[in-house]
Amino acid sequence: MGKAGFRIRHLQLDTQREHIVVVHEAAVREGDLGFKPLDRVVVLGTDPATGERREVTAVLNFCRDEILRPSEIGLTDEVFADLGLPEGTEISATLAPALKSLDRVRDKLSGRRLDRAAFDAILSDVVRHRYSKVELTMFVLSCSMRPLDLEEVVDFTRAMIAAGNRLDFGAGPIADKHCVGGVPGHRTTMLVVPILVSLGLRVPKTSSRAITSPAGTADTMEMLADVSLGAERMHRVVERAGGCIAWGGALDLAPADDILITVERPMEMDTEAQMVASILAKKKTAGATHALLDLPVGPTAKIRTREAADRLAELFRQVGRAVDLALDVVVTEARGPIGRGIGPRFEALDVLSVLRREPGAPADLREKSLFLAGRLLEHVGAVDPTRGYRAAQEALDSGAAERAFDAIVDLQGRRELPGPPPWSWVFEAPADGRIREIDCWHVARVAKHAGAPANPTAGVRLLRTVGDVVSRGEPLFEIHAQSEAQLAFARGYAEAHRGLVSFGF
Amino acid sequence: MGKAGFRIRHLQLDTQREHIVVVHEAAVREGDLGFKPLDRVVVLGTDPATGERREVTAVLNFCRDEILRPSEIGLTDEVFADLGLPEGTEISATLAPALKSLDRVRDKLSGRRLDRAAFDAILSDVVRHRYSKVELTMFVLSCSMRPLDLEEVVDFTRAMIAAGNRLDFGAGPIADKHCVGGVPGHRTTMLVVPILVSLGLRVPKTSSRAITSPAGTADTMEMLADVSLGAERMHRVVERAGGCIAWGGALDLAPADDILITVERPMEMDTEAQMVASILAKKKTAGATHALLDLPVGPTAKIRTREAADRLAELFRQVGRAVDLALDVVVTEARGPIGRGIGPRFEALDVLSVLRREPGAPADLREKSLFLAGRLLEHVGAVDPTRGYRAAQEALDSGAAERAFDAIVDLQGRRELPGPPPWSWVFEAPADGRIREIDCWHVARVAKHAGAPANPTAGVRLLRTVGDVVSRGEPLFEIHAQSEAQLAFARGYAEAHRGLVSFGF
Repeated sequence: MGKAGFRIRHLQLDTQREHIVVVHEAAVREGDLGFKPLDRVVVLGTDPATGERREVTAVLNFCRDEILRPSEIGLTDEVFADLGLPEGTEISATLAPALKSLDRVRDKLSGRRLDRAAFDAILSDVVRHRYSKVELTMFVLSCSMRPLDLEEVVDFTRAMIAAGNRLDFGAGPIADKHCVGGVPGHRTTMLVVPILVSLGLRVPKTSSRAITSPAGTADTMEMLADVSLGAERMHRVVERAGGCIAWGGALDLAPADDILITVERPMEMDTEAQMVASILAKKKTAGATHALLDLPVGPTAKIRTREAADRLAELFRQVGRAVDLALDVVVTEARGPIGRGIGPRFEALDVLSVLRREPGAPADLREKSLFLAGRLLEHVGAVDPTRGYRAAQEALDSGAAERAFDAIVDLQGRRELPGPPPWSWVFEAPADGRIREIDCWHVARVAKHAGAPANPTAGVRLLRTVGDVVSRGEPLFEIHAQSEAQLAFARGYAEAHRGLVSFGF
Repeated sequence: MGKAGFRIRHLQLDTQREHIVVVHEAAVREGDLGFKPLDRVVVLGTDPATGERREVTAVLNFCRDEILRPSEIGLTDEVFADLGLPEGTEISATLAPALKSLDRVRDKLSGRRLDRAAFDAILSDVVRHRYSKVELTMFVLSCSMRPLDLEEVVDFTRAMIAAGNRLDFGAGPIADKHCVGGVPGHRTTMLVVPILVSLGLRVPKTSSRAITSPAGTADTMEMLADVSLGAERMHRVVERAGGCIAWGGALDLAPADDILITVERPMEMDTEAQMVASILAKKKTAGATHALLDLPVGPTAKIRTREAADRLAELFRQVGRAVDLALDVVVTEARGPIGRGIGPRFEALDVLSVLRREPGAPADLREKSLFLAGRLLEHVGAVDPTRGYRAAQEALDSGAAERAFDAIVDLQGRRELPGPPPWSWVFEAPADGRIREIDCWHVARVAKHAGAPANPTAGVRLLRTVGDVVSRGEPLFEIHAQSEAQLAFARGYAEAHRGLVSFGF
């Protein structure tokens, strides 16, 4: 089949980790290339400066006159960055050979097990962007419809670790923590890290941005400091401050996971196996030797029953052992958000008020952070068993944790916290009573409808929380938004789901 | 969430039936829209001429300066055509509500049955381009991993019929035929239609272009006549000539199928249920009352065993009854290509030589066409049972079929058959012996590598066929291509698969 010569044009389209290149339909017709739209092609070129051969694989789209000339090939953002050749360079494009690893995906779909070599082959093609969205979806669904057994989860995790970079902070102990999520406002990481660091532990923490929630830890930390550190800056911060709170996405750790997420998000699907592999691979590649895992259970949290949490905890423990990560798993209870704020700015304010021991600081966020910090201190052996909570409390109350946090923020690059957004509205108690539960899912949706996390100052601020006794008409929470339209959108959702705060005893 | 105002720009990108719109990332940031890449948005506008409100749903991509201004929204080809508003029109974009029908897809994935209402909901969203590629893949895989039962196939077929246009040629009998494919060169349709038409039957035939093969009937017919007729022209041709051979894709019949194919092709997957629903929906919406279905079985054809063919035939019969289509199903044998040419131009030459009763006309193509035409004549009741073959033979040998074909070609718009392509190479017999089989799959790949069907003159011409006795070194087939590179590519493939012609007794 034809091999075609083109000149590179950078087409400034962000295709979200799908590698797409565009050629002019006239070039295909006249060049007798036999290319069809959506074919997979290999783009090959030579760096004019170094003489180095470079190639990327991408999916082909066709265009007409306005976009490109027939002599050009348009590389969308990621393809252009990955190929790393300047605009105007002559390159060739040929049909890519069939992906052998797709046969393994078809095997899995038809019920066969995957072994380590199969996972390696699949994920190595995934991180080279050789899988289209359709093929990524096939792989994710194959693992969901034909659930992985323990050995497969272990092999999947190992393949995910192997297919990307790995940070090294030495022998350790290097401590890490993770919460599987589903509880809004739950910013314990930003408290646990400085507590541990102030006690002499090394905690090079990487966190994610929000995927489906109104804020991820990286979004919240970014209200106060730079989080896109890169490996070298991260090493410098950790060397001097003992720890950091960085955005993991800037580090290319377990990149296969970041690519799989681009289809999992629209599918609104994630399997336990993928969750386990993804979390443990990220901890392991971030250089951790010890990690504490928090599985919150609640009727509106991500994990709904104690049984599901126990099963998941056991899977985590087994895979943790297999990949040589010392893992402590705690199952906690979630009857509503933790802290008062939901959305990056409001959550950052909660964290600061706990660190500064302000009188109105949210007690639930403080307590949970002390509990987790204590467990992790005991788990790494930094304190005697049963002494963890007390040690964490002293670090927080003495101001040592606040100083450790300030040092981290300064080294990462301090940012000015923005002011509140201009629009707000108050949700009032629809009845008298004691607040029994606040629906994590619905209240997160309200914050998202208000604009979080794309507008990091938008979100929800709880005025009352689970356990409080309130009267009808009393303000329960505020919605804050950057625009009147967004406020109306979030308010409409809240009014349509008045039961999101439930009363009882 | 924000509602944003933009001016329409037509972005001349062909995204292959995925509805994609592009906005400038600065517009999203500054407008506080809360849009994320890959979000689904509804684009709403008013026709400045008629005042009519129009809307389309599309998936959002982001771009930077070179492509659009922040005040613009880029509509790719199909979105622009579907919305039907001129460039520069002010429109608004809002986040689309969650697709309820996706919950039905998730139901199916988790093992629940789908009913007629569920299929209607899913396919009606599919034809409105509300499903992204990821979601289409989920639906296709859900039907493949949780095989449809008979009632589900019937409901799927009915929903596919309902979700699109329908042609009406009156009470009938309106005859149609279909072959499930996998046999290269098999252009019986172009012979069966004129035979039937010359005997007074009405055969408004719609055919497809190649999906994974080197030629579809529409590609081959297009060598001789226009095939993109549209409903009105098709009616006119059928009224005057009694029949036609048109490209179905121009008629929007069972459009859901055309959209599902865009993910099935890269998946290289199609399920029996989807095949049955798709074929019967296309026959039914094309106005047929009677149809003949040919299921070729062979070791290298699409259907590999007699048992698989019998099971599929029974499923076709049952669903045909349920949707009120009189169906005759024949299972035929395939030991190699039928006719001598593979690729649109070579196949058209085969058809013409049979119609013209030329001495060297391929006997296998003639025989199979007479057999199918005879069965169909008997099936619609146009002749007494057992008299079909003879009637077809007379129509062909008298020249009546040739005259009928010429009339159809003239009414559709005659085209000049192009000359042969410049490059060719001969494949010689690797041994003495009788040709036992020719591998349908591999010989089709050779023709595709040579450029067919994108280059319609490229392909393979068999010099010898199944049953012939040949000596070592004797020419077996020729490869023809438009470029030296394509010839080398196809030749390389043929040489790597010398066993594609097998010998024995």
